[in-house]
Amino acid sequence: MGEAFSCVKGMKDWYGAEALERERIVSILRETFKAYGFSPLETPHIEYVDVLTKKGGQEIQKEIYYGYDQAGRKFGLRFDLTVPLARFVATKKTLKLPYKRYSIGEVFRDGASQPEQGRYRCITQCDVDIVGLKEMCAEAELITLAFDVFNKIGLTNVEIRLNNRKLLNGLMMGFGVKNELLTSVLVALDKFDKIGFEGVIKELNGINWLQDEEIKKIRNIMKLDGTNEEMLKELEKLAKNDLAKEGIQELREILSYLDSDNFVKIAPYLARGLDYYTGPVMEGFSTKGEIKSSILGGGRYDNMIGDFIGTNEKIYAVGFSFGLERITSLLKKDKEPENISPAQIFIVPLASLKESFRIAKNLRDAGINVDVDLKKRSLKKSLSYAEALGIPYVGILGDDEIKKGLISVKDLKRRVQKEMSVEELKKKLKE
Amino acid sequence: MGEAFSCVKGMKDWYGAEALERERIVSILRETFKAYGFSPLETPHIEYVDVLTKKGGQEIQKEIYYGYDQAGRKFGLRFDLTVPLARFVATKKTLKLPYKRYSIGEVFRDGASQPEQGRYRCITQCDVDIVGLKEMCAEAELITLAFDVFNKIGLTNVEIRLNNRKLLNGLMMGFGVKNELLTSVLVALDKFDKIGFEGVIKELNGINWLQDEEIKKIRNIMKLDGTNEEMLKELEKLAKNDLAKEGIQELREILSYLDSDNFVKIAPYLARGLDYYTGPVMEGFSTKGEIKSSILGGGRYDNMIGDFIGTNEKIYAVGFSFGLERITSLLKKDKEPENISPAQIFIVPLASLKESFRIAKNLRDAGINVDVDLKKRSLKKSLSYAEALGIPYVGILGDDEIKKGLISVKDLKRRVQKEMSVEELKKKLKE
Repeated sequence: MGEAFSCVKGMKDWYGAEALERERIVSILRETFKAYGFSPLETPHIEYVDVLTKKGGQEIQKEIYYGYDQAGRKFGLRFDLTVPLARFVATKKTLKLPYKRYSIGEVFRDGASQPEQGRYRCITQCDVDIVGLKEMCAEAELITLAFDVFNKIGLTNVEIRLNNRKLLNGLMMGFGVKNELLTSVLVALDKFDKIGFEGVIKELNGINWLQDEEIKKIRNIMKLDGTNEEMLKELEKLAKNDLAKEGIQELREILSYLDSDNFVKIAPYLARGLDYYTGPVMEGFSTKGEIKSSILGGGRYDNMIGDFIGTNEKIYAVGFSFGLERITSLLKKDKEPENISPAQIFIVPLASLKESFRIAKNLRDAGINVDVDLKKRSLKKSLSYAEALGIPYVGILGDDEIKKGLISVKDLKRRVQKEMSVEELKKKLKE
Repeated sequence: MGEAFSCVKGMKDWYGAEALERERIVSILRETFKAYGFSPLETPHIEYVDVLTKKGGQEIQKEIYYGYDQAGRKFGLRFDLTVPLARFVATKKTLKLPYKRYSIGEVFRDGASQPEQGRYRCITQCDVDIVGLKEMCAEAELITLAFDVFNKIGLTNVEIRLNNRKLLNGLMMGFGVKNELLTSVLVALDKFDKIGFEGVIKELNGINWLQDEEIKKIRNIMKLDGTNEEMLKELEKLAKNDLAKEGIQELREILSYLDSDNFVKIAPYLARGLDYYTGPVMEGFSTKGEIKSSILGGGRYDNMIGDFIGTNEKIYAVGFSFGLERITSLLKKDKEPENISPAQIFIVPLASLKESFRIAKNLRDAGINVDVDLKKRSLKKSLSYAEALGIPYVGILGDDEIKKGLISVKDLKRRVQKEMSVEELKKKLKE
């Protein structure tokens, strides 16, 4: 099959049960975001290259899909939802701060690793950000919101790892790590979850000019364990400068606002990839099953928007990004992909299509999803179609049923059939 | 302001009340589509140029946004949702027919007219299609679904104009219009709603080789008026060949399935722009207000998918496309754009943030949207912020209230304030 029939490389079509599951999750995200007072922002999928390359490192620029419009202006597909947020804040001078917004949409990264599970060149990010708040209760609200979302979605065993760039940077300074080595050290440390203790040590050993003495101190922070309070006490002993102390103070403040911090874990090795984080950083994991999937990431980036705009004024910002593909892949397990209909019942109009339409309307008005067989075919073929689409019930409407004012309802799983009134059927399906 | 801060020309950001309204409408569309047994299909926003240019005329190719990926493959932004549907059907050999799907997403047309009201270079289409059904009840189901949608959205005064390409082509043949003039004649006729009777006549007069005798006959079909049955009777008199008669028969069949055809109007001049329609075509209008906006368009295209795939087999298809921007612009009238929060109440934690978080959780669990003021500021500033965001109530939680176990609730519109329990507040907001 040539390109004439293929999706763009690294992208895919979502359909059937998977697409329904995506919609269910997105709908919960939206409703929860609104429940916390966030309002929607939709920005175009393409931006001028000037906008896309204003912030963000060299690496990301290599992953942009570029194009030209008919007038020759160069554009690129957006690679995240934070740059468009910065552009929006820059243009809306009248925006009231704090501005709490969410954006849900596709972002594109050309050359993202081969599309294995959850690694596509087009992914859907669900971002929630608060612009204009320096108070740490913003972080606490986002963490509360995240657990609320996971709870409603039905994703248990989620853990949020929490750290602070101020703490991390302060510690490294205290350990004597030179400023120019900082990024390499943090990149190595951040891989702790993926490559483990020994892996990180190996990477640290590979960093030129990094002293054995420093590596010894860094390895200690990976070894820390215990309750959050115990961890913070240990970290306090290591924090020799104001920056590190401030970081710890911020973490304490965040935890103080949470009703329970059972699912929040201080993780002193956590750095998060992006350069622009300036304070608390967090990452959400599902701890269930073999795959330790990061399903949520975020943090505070107090300089990024101001730098983008080029103002001297600091524009505080903190945000979370939920990864839709990752979340869906954790949940879809027991649903068959070929289950492609949202209908709860399939009405086969053996006698009267118009009467079937009326019954369908009656059921739909009660909130039930109904499909009516519009194709002229045998009852046998209709039944096998309904079965293939995973529709649980078939309602058969023949002359006999119409005379009696009833409908024959076949339960395709249990293989039983019963005549009932539309009201009885409604009750049954509403269960 | 340079390009560094602008949206791509012809596109825009959606935020505040408008974005909330868009989400409300899309959510109704989705739920209604599912209620009729349609299942979601999400395809990428970009497609290979081979796919995009396989069908569709020269005109549309001039409006594609083109780009290259890092490996040099040429892609384009999709300009509709029908081409991706054809590609999907081509690749999914196991798809059970009829395949009923909906797709909601942005499509891009470079060079679309200057962005006036509802004419953007990026618009959101909400498409619902049935693939694999030749029966006319498919059209009837789509019309029923459309009225259901408009009803739920709160859009009254909607009229669906209905015609049939077979009837139109048959009539023109019967009038003696040469085949090579057909497209020009239909393009002119189709403008009837926009440019009126005289306008169309003028355009028809401008078509070389079109005879006066033919124009006289064509003008007659614009003059037809009356009930659908009267119209069909008149059209029957004009229908001299099998093609035209078949077209009338199909229209009769569609109407026969509808419980009421009060809002469906046979419109013999309607052709719809696209070349690929093969049978019934329809267009939905809001007849309210000055602007006669087309908010829905569609029809039957039985050859397009088969041609796309290159198979000899006919793949029947019929679909509707709802225009989100048009629909929203008809509805947004009385909502202020600066109303940017979905929150129903704004809690100001004068005394305890943690207690405010608890109350917020309690209210949210009851389905109420709650914002908590996270910023340290004066009560006066908090109130004016809530007012600017259009939040109707403010809940004030000071030491006094906490002692009493109550919360002071200020109604920002009526300018009254009252202490009440959280349970009372919950009842009030659920009203």
